[in-house]
Amino acid sequence: MSNLPSIGSYPFLAEPFHCDCSKRLFIGHLGNHLLNAADYHSSERGYGMNYLNTINATWVLSRLAIELGEVPLMYDKFNVETWVESVMRYFTNRNFKILGSNGKVYGYGSSIWAMINTESRQPVDILDVKDGAINNCVEKEYLCPIASCSRVRIGTDIPLVQTIDTTYHDVDVNGHINSIKYIEHALNLWSLDWHKQHFVKRIEVAYVAETYIGDKLNFYKMESSNATCTEALIRITKTNIDGEAEVCRIKIVFNQKIE
Amino acid sequence: MSNLPSIGSYPFLAEPFHCDCSKRLFIGHLGNHLLNAADYHSSERGYGMNYLNTINATWVLSRLAIELGEVPLMYDKFNVETWVESVMRYFTNRNFKILGSNGKVYGYGSSIWAMINTESRQPVDILDVKDGAINNCVEKEYLCPIASCSRVRIGTDIPLVQTIDTTYHDVDVNGHINSIKYIEHALNLWSLDWHKQHFVKRIEVAYVAETYIGDKLNFYKMESSNATCTEALIRITKTNIDGEAEVCRIKIVFNQKIE
Repeated sequence: MSNLPSIGSYPFLAEPFHCDCSKRLFIGHLGNHLLNAADYHSSERGYGMNYLNTINATWVLSRLAIELGEVPLMYDKFNVETWVESVMRYFTNRNFKILGSNGKVYGYGSSIWAMINTESRQPVDILDVKDGAINNCVEKEYLCPIASCSRVRIGTDIPLVQTIDTTYHDVDVNGHINSIKYIEHALNLWSLDWHKQHFVKRIEVAYVAETYIGDKLNFYKMESSNATCTEALIRITKTNIDGEAEVCRIKIVFNQKIE
Repeated sequence: MSNLPSIGSYPFLAEPFHCDCSKRLFIGHLGNHLLNAADYHSSERGYGMNYLNTINATWVLSRLAIELGEVPLMYDKFNVETWVESVMRYFTNRNFKILGSNGKVYGYGSSIWAMINTESRQPVDILDVKDGAINNCVEKEYLCPIASCSRVRIGTDIPLVQTIDTTYHDVDVNGHINSIKYIEHALNLWSLDWHKQHFVKRIEVAYVAETYIGDKLNFYKMESSNATCTEALIRITKTNIDGEAEVCRIKIVFNQKIE
């Protein structure tokens, strides 16, 4: 296992039925491809979801940032490169580079992951897994030139714009609402016409708590624009029998399309 | 182009983040893979969406049936084989076979496609395209042993169970609501617990009319069960300024899981 290079590279295709009205890959699908690449990379190196499940542990995404110069077009082939930049006891930093043919770079991603016990939901010391095997794959030199994912600070007095029920399709293999679904639901707060005229230059998410089927999701949103971009802040909370609690905070920077 | 075999075969992977709470590929994702395979197959043979767009034409899915013995599990590699079984002036029959490793067969699909002019939305004579080039690729011998897709007859007196708004993520590259999204919204009518205990043995859809962003979708549903399966009939209508009109009719057969 430890003979593998620190950087993994996985091929994907912008399949036409995963593309939006502008024939560009949905950001949610791109996000899923990043998560899939992360899973392949860690599985090949011995600490993926399937192995962790055997020791009652799993990876949990804590923060994710994606920054794009261009979104893959329908039929574009691209590779997602991924590598672990640093490992601490309870968190790892994992980066992504989204590469097209002929050296074209679509963009980059940055993420922070925690490991938890699937029964107690408490943090697991990452360096205890296989005697810290993950340390053999750290790659500190390869460049990820975007700002790393932040905590996404949002004030408390922003308006509620939508409440939705969670459904079968929101739930992933771990039994909770899929991390990428929050991004999709957030992007649905804008109209089709908006998406025809703008693209997501950068999106970042700070995940706070897990949600489960039956929870209602509430979306609070504010946005501001200048000459070149629109910046939106979204707080998602859940409502269930325990009351309302914060689930994640999202920041989206939209740029005008020049197509 | 005409040197290609009549049957195309395209590799896919049940990516973990495209799988449901039972670690099985979402039927919607499987359906999208079938549609992608259909598009690759017709593109390679010269009458795919990209070519048709240059002559203001496109394929429209009229009926789709998928019947499964087993649903691909997380990380399963599988191939979708597809071929055109017959061509008439205004319709083609296209079949699918979903094949795993070691000759395992997950299931089959059957579909009917029309070709329309993208401006007038009127039917186009398929045999007029490239002097009937599609006739060179017809495959009549290869077996697709499932019942072909029916009209899905549903009485008019079944109850309305849900109404939803259409959003950015419902719209595909053709600018209308994606054919597979109706299946996903329909499957969302059942609870997560239902899906944990049942799998989709067969689903068939008869598409009647296109829908666009801004249309509301109404779901009418009835179901009946016997010792081995539950059969559900769903009528989806749209509501917009023109009133209410039928969009599609869906029949789903659920079998109990024996896992």
